[in-house]
Amino acid sequence: MDIARFFLLLATMLVTAKVLGEAAERIGQPAVLGELVAGVLLGGSVLGVVPATGPTAQLVHVFAELGVLLLLFEIGLETDLKEMFRAGPASLAVATVGVVLPFALGYVYWALLPHPAVPTADLATAGIFIGATLTATSVGITARVLSDLGRMSTPEARIIIGAAVIDDVLGLVILSVVSGLAAGAAVTVLGIVRTFAVAVGFLVAAVLIGRFVMPRLFDIIVRMRTRNVLIVFSVAFALGLASLASLAGSALIIGAFAAGIILSGTNQFDTIEQEVRPVGSIVAPIFFVSVGASVNLGLLNPATAESRATLGVAGALIVIAILGKLAAGWGAPWARFRRLIVGVGMVPRGEVGLIFADIGRRSGVLPDQVFGAVLLMVMVTTFVVPPALKTLFSRVDTGE
Amino acid sequence: MDIARFFLLLATMLVTAKVLGEAAERIGQPAVLGELVAGVLLGGSVLGVVPATGPTAQLVHVFAELGVLLLLFEIGLETDLKEMFRAGPASLAVATVGVVLPFALGYVYWALLPHPAVPTADLATAGIFIGATLTATSVGITARVLSDLGRMSTPEARIIIGAAVIDDVLGLVILSVVSGLAAGAAVTVLGIVRTFAVAVGFLVAAVLIGRFVMPRLFDIIVRMRTRNVLIVFSVAFALGLASLASLAGSALIIGAFAAGIILSGTNQFDTIEQEVRPVGSIVAPIFFVSVGASVNLGLLNPATAESRATLGVAGALIVIAILGKLAAGWGAPWARFRRLIVGVGMVPRGEVGLIFADIGRRSGVLPDQVFGAVLLMVMVTTFVVPPALKTLFSRVDTGE
Repeated sequence: MDIARFFLLLATMLVTAKVLGEAAERIGQPAVLGELVAGVLLGGSVLGVVPATGPTAQLVHVFAELGVLLLLFEIGLETDLKEMFRAGPASLAVATVGVVLPFALGYVYWALLPHPAVPTADLATAGIFIGATLTATSVGITARVLSDLGRMSTPEARIIIGAAVIDDVLGLVILSVVSGLAAGAAVTVLGIVRTFAVAVGFLVAAVLIGRFVMPRLFDIIVRMRTRNVLIVFSVAFALGLASLASLAGSALIIGAFAAGIILSGTNQFDTIEQEVRPVGSIVAPIFFVSVGASVNLGLLNPATAESRATLGVAGALIVIAILGKLAAGWGAPWARFRRLIVGVGMVPRGEVGLIFADIGRRSGVLPDQVFGAVLLMVMVTTFVVPPALKTLFSRVDTGE
Repeated sequence: MDIARFFLLLATMLVTAKVLGEAAERIGQPAVLGELVAGVLLGGSVLGVVPATGPTAQLVHVFAELGVLLLLFEIGLETDLKEMFRAGPASLAVATVGVVLPFALGYVYWALLPHPAVPTADLATAGIFIGATLTATSVGITARVLSDLGRMSTPEARIIIGAAVIDDVLGLVILSVVSGLAAGAAVTVLGIVRTFAVAVGFLVAAVLIGRFVMPRLFDIIVRMRTRNVLIVFSVAFALGLASLASLAGSALIIGAFAAGIILSGTNQFDTIEQEVRPVGSIVAPIFFVSVGASVNLGLLNPATAESRATLGVAGALIVIAILGKLAAGWGAPWARFRRLIVGVGMVPRGEVGLIFADIGRRSGVLPDQVFGAVLLMVMVTTFVVPPALKTLFSRVDTGE
């Protein structure tokens, strides 16, 4: 692996992301849309600058994970725990509807309806996989759009972020189920409950203990004589808690989010937020460009019968993906917020859906065409949301 | 490769570096000494937390390179080009003496004196390799010590940094010679001149063109609407120029240093410096901990005849390494500066010396014991300088 070439690739990704992000803003769209398009341009479909496999791809993946980790850490820092608790029941209801409905629709669509163009070995198992890919919201994309639009402190944003984090916890449970199915193992209720308990338990325990311990620890750290202690300890804490979350069976980004919530309770959180921003701004674009680079434009070519079948399945999945999450906006009828905005905010599917689809393809449960359709579904749900949210918030401002 | 475990390793390296850096400051030493000790503790000699080989080691290496790259970028940003030019002739003289003298002494010591305990195939070639390992100053270590002590703006610091950068250019020329020797190729004067011209030419051309183009470009960039453009474009420029330097046959850190010098001429350089600091503070400790982790304490065990021979050779190399660079402090008799401080500042040898030694070992020119001795020489020269510079600067303050 050539370090000089890798650094040149990082520089290229950063410059392209910022230039197209600026272009997106100039035509009235969120910058993240430009960063995603930058990824499509640099990815295998067009220029092939960002490799999809090999050692360099793995390195890019590490930096992308670091990017989404620091992004969730920043979101955690900006989160007001009390308001999050107040939004909690609504977030939980939105998340539950937004997981159950797309899952059920996806299962019914595949397992119970006929698909003459796509032969499938085990319709019921494939149906569960397809349902699973439709569940998890990509909190990274939505949070970035909300942040680009300066709407992170709206009630809608709080409900969306809360629901997206709950989605990730539910996603872990679903992941354990589909991994078990793919491995041919019997999936027990006890196993599902255990996965759920670990994911929720880690988050709750970390925040409870952390909110008590860390403010005291940071009051000591801030008295240290060495320079840059605050930023280094903060990032180390985010990295450490994210790793522990992952090793305990939860997810990296949940640990990073918890780390942010915990440090938002320190007396130094203003300085921390200010110094984390430049660090995050260097790695976060790598995540969005990577997401864009994984897009395969070749799937959109309707020349062959096979890709027409893929496009047909993708169309159905996209409808389910969008309607299922839009409906989630109406999942908490007692709470007061703009339901359409919350519904749209939950639409983007990200890497979690792709992970499910990939497990399904590798274990032979999902045919290649279905995998391609899932990819298309992730692409479309990711790309339609930034302009849609922008338009919806503009309407709020003009009082429509 | 497990990303969660890698992030946990990064967190461990960062926390250990800062805690031992603080301990070093509390006992009156520069923080970087503590970070190096943190590396020794985490490295293979003691705890074995930082691996020496394998995919995780390569990842750590990428982050360490990023750390030293951003460090040199920051040093470049703080460099006043006019004062650097004024110090130029003195730096050149110091660098030349500090390269020629240790090289000549190292060659004479190995090629012309008897070494009954260490059989060597080709004494003359081995002598050239040993001389080469004694030449290059580790600008990263010295700059960090000067910065820890708050002495970056002294005349001595300017001469040291300038000379250390020239050392790296000369080191590239020597590298091309020793690589040629190791491959058994004929080393031509034309080849040496070409390597030298590329290394110097890149630096001069980049700074000349960059100082004209970049201030104008950054005046445009700063008017962009997307957030964080300044820090992202600055870091991308540093990464890009470092890569281009390396691909053009110069070195990563020379390109990064040039990028810093170029951006120090922009109207936004205050903001750039302020935002680069948190980014650098996260990756630079990874470099210093890595350097510490490469230390093999087993070499210090005098139980076997073989390691006694290694210790003997190491003792001679350490004397040559220190005396040769101390003498360099007197290399510019016309200029006014504290010669002992400059001499001591040039003493640390870093990764460049190790690269030479590694090429020599792998091609069979250097016996294993000599490689061990070079490792010891690098360790000792790196660890003695921080306390020595601290003491010398304190004496200046008290007027001794």
